[in-house]
Amino acid sequence: MSETFRVTFLGTSAAVPTTRRNVSATLVAYQDLKWLIDCGEGTQRQIMRANLGFKNLSRVVLSHEHLDHILGMGGLLATLNMLQPVEYVVVYGNPTVLERVRQMTSYIGRVAQYALQLQVLQEGLVFTHRQLECYAFPTRHRVKQSYGFVFQEKPRRRFLPDAATRLGIPNGPERRRLLAGESLQSPSGQLVHPDDVLGPEEPGKKLVYISDTMYFPGLSRVAQGADCLISEATFLHTDAALAAEAGHMTAAQAAMVARDAGVAMLYLNHVSQRYAQSEHLLLEEARQIFANTHLANDLDTIGI
Amino acid sequence: MSETFRVTFLGTSAAVPTTRRNVSATLVAYQDLKWLIDCGEGTQRQIMRANLGFKNLSRVVLSHEHLDHILGMGGLLATLNMLQPVEYVVVYGNPTVLERVRQMTSYIGRVAQYALQLQVLQEGLVFTHRQLECYAFPTRHRVKQSYGFVFQEKPRRRFLPDAATRLGIPNGPERRRLLAGESLQSPSGQLVHPDDVLGPEEPGKKLVYISDTMYFPGLSRVAQGADCLISEATFLHTDAALAAEAGHMTAAQAAMVARDAGVAMLYLNHVSQRYAQSEHLLLEEARQIFANTHLANDLDTIGI
Repeated sequence: MSETFRVTFLGTSAAVPTTRRNVSATLVAYQDLKWLIDCGEGTQRQIMRANLGFKNLSRVVLSHEHLDHILGMGGLLATLNMLQPVEYVVVYGNPTVLERVRQMTSYIGRVAQYALQLQVLQEGLVFTHRQLECYAFPTRHRVKQSYGFVFQEKPRRRFLPDAATRLGIPNGPERRRLLAGESLQSPSGQLVHPDDVLGPEEPGKKLVYISDTMYFPGLSRVAQGADCLISEATFLHTDAALAAEAGHMTAAQAAMVARDAGVAMLYLNHVSQRYAQSEHLLLEEARQIFANTHLANDLDTIGI
Repeated sequence: MSETFRVTFLGTSAAVPTTRRNVSATLVAYQDLKWLIDCGEGTQRQIMRANLGFKNLSRVVLSHEHLDHILGMGGLLATLNMLQPVEYVVVYGNPTVLERVRQMTSYIGRVAQYALQLQVLQEGLVFTHRQLECYAFPTRHRVKQSYGFVFQEKPRRRFLPDAATRLGIPNGPERRRLLAGESLQSPSGQLVHPDDVLGPEEPGKKLVYISDTMYFPGLSRVAQGADCLISEATFLHTDAALAAEAGHMTAAQAAMVARDAGVAMLYLNHVSQRYAQSEHLLLEEARQIFANTHLANDLDTIGI
């Protein structure tokens, strides 16, 4: 099946950067849409390094207000203001996040060259774009409101060109009308309905992004059947007590969510710098529970 | 002569980063002292990349409030708070700078693990450390107050061990007392003065750092006789009008300052991303006026 989402990991380290991992940011591309999830310090430069371009970078969603997830907003907005690749920017976040973004923006000493919208993030539908719907779901972290995200493509029905030909529908506008849900008369006078030329409904792709949270069973309900689950996995399970205290998950817990949700693949993200010399242990721990686990690295790009 | 200063360029790009150059930050090391000049977004990670360590990183001086010079402060202070390598941090800047730093600091959601002092920067002596004096001088940029910096080592007189031996002064505390300026009686009863065992006064090393400014002749007075001049050189001289409008210098103007001040060497810094493919032109332009010119690159370290 073809690729629906293109995900680029821009920062995969928890709390502080390392020489190999920057702090949190992930870019989800869907058709001409770019969604930036979190924007830690240095994200604008990571976007340059990944050669993603700033064009269409009009949506930023911030999971919560911790600094390693938001401190890149001042620089990103200043650069968007200078280079002018977009006409508007929408930033989603909880009220604390938005107040900090508003402050950072106030430092930019010239007239804004884009329309900036600050939108309060709440559980439920955040945004739709063509066949894509984005939902926020609450996570449990050391803040009042923190969110993870579900990117759900709507179910789709493929056009069946052979059936259309059999029914005498020529190539061109008639086929597009049928695809758009309209019934019409074929050149031979037969009434043709969309159902006659559309295949069975196929589920859309589902991508789930779990940002900072402690483990709780509800996470697997949210991630149910995802084609790809990207999950924070800050700690090793030997540090599970520390993880719970800090409001984070272990690699084993991320793998439990993946297993219980029956996802197709799992990417571990947001790893602590304390394991910089032993990252393979995170992967080994998770794979014992969920085999198709990968460790996200900065500037990795995956197609889903 | 031995090395007095060790300078590491942490960010050499103007306004926006590029894949090869981060925004402004320079670390000046002198004995056990580390002075961070400016702190653009991503500086903490550049410090990690340069393998400089956060130990003794207790002094940050911010030349002015433009975002490419200060946005790394939030992340740097958060990391210093987490890793606890220092007991105090002093941040120097104009009142606008300090207000922004104060705001960024207020985001750090835990009790500060270090004593933070915010000190208003003014023309004149900023700080002394052993034999080193640091002065701020006003520059002319698009803000109310912006500063460059002079690092001036005090003149020193070397101890002459042969003279001391000739006068019968044994190794040990007597020599240290003479070096500290005390007169004393030698074992043979002769009165010995510091002047008898100290060489002639030698000038200390001088390092001058010109942060964002338009060109003005007074700059060469400040840089007079420097062992090393580090100067912003944002534009090529073909863009001199643009430089003046933006309150910046051209490479040729930086070289004129170096030539008129009779410095030993010049490093061009703070270069515009518009020349990313033609940086050699900056160097060629400056060298026609001042031969011993170098182009600073990120993570370059020089001894002075």
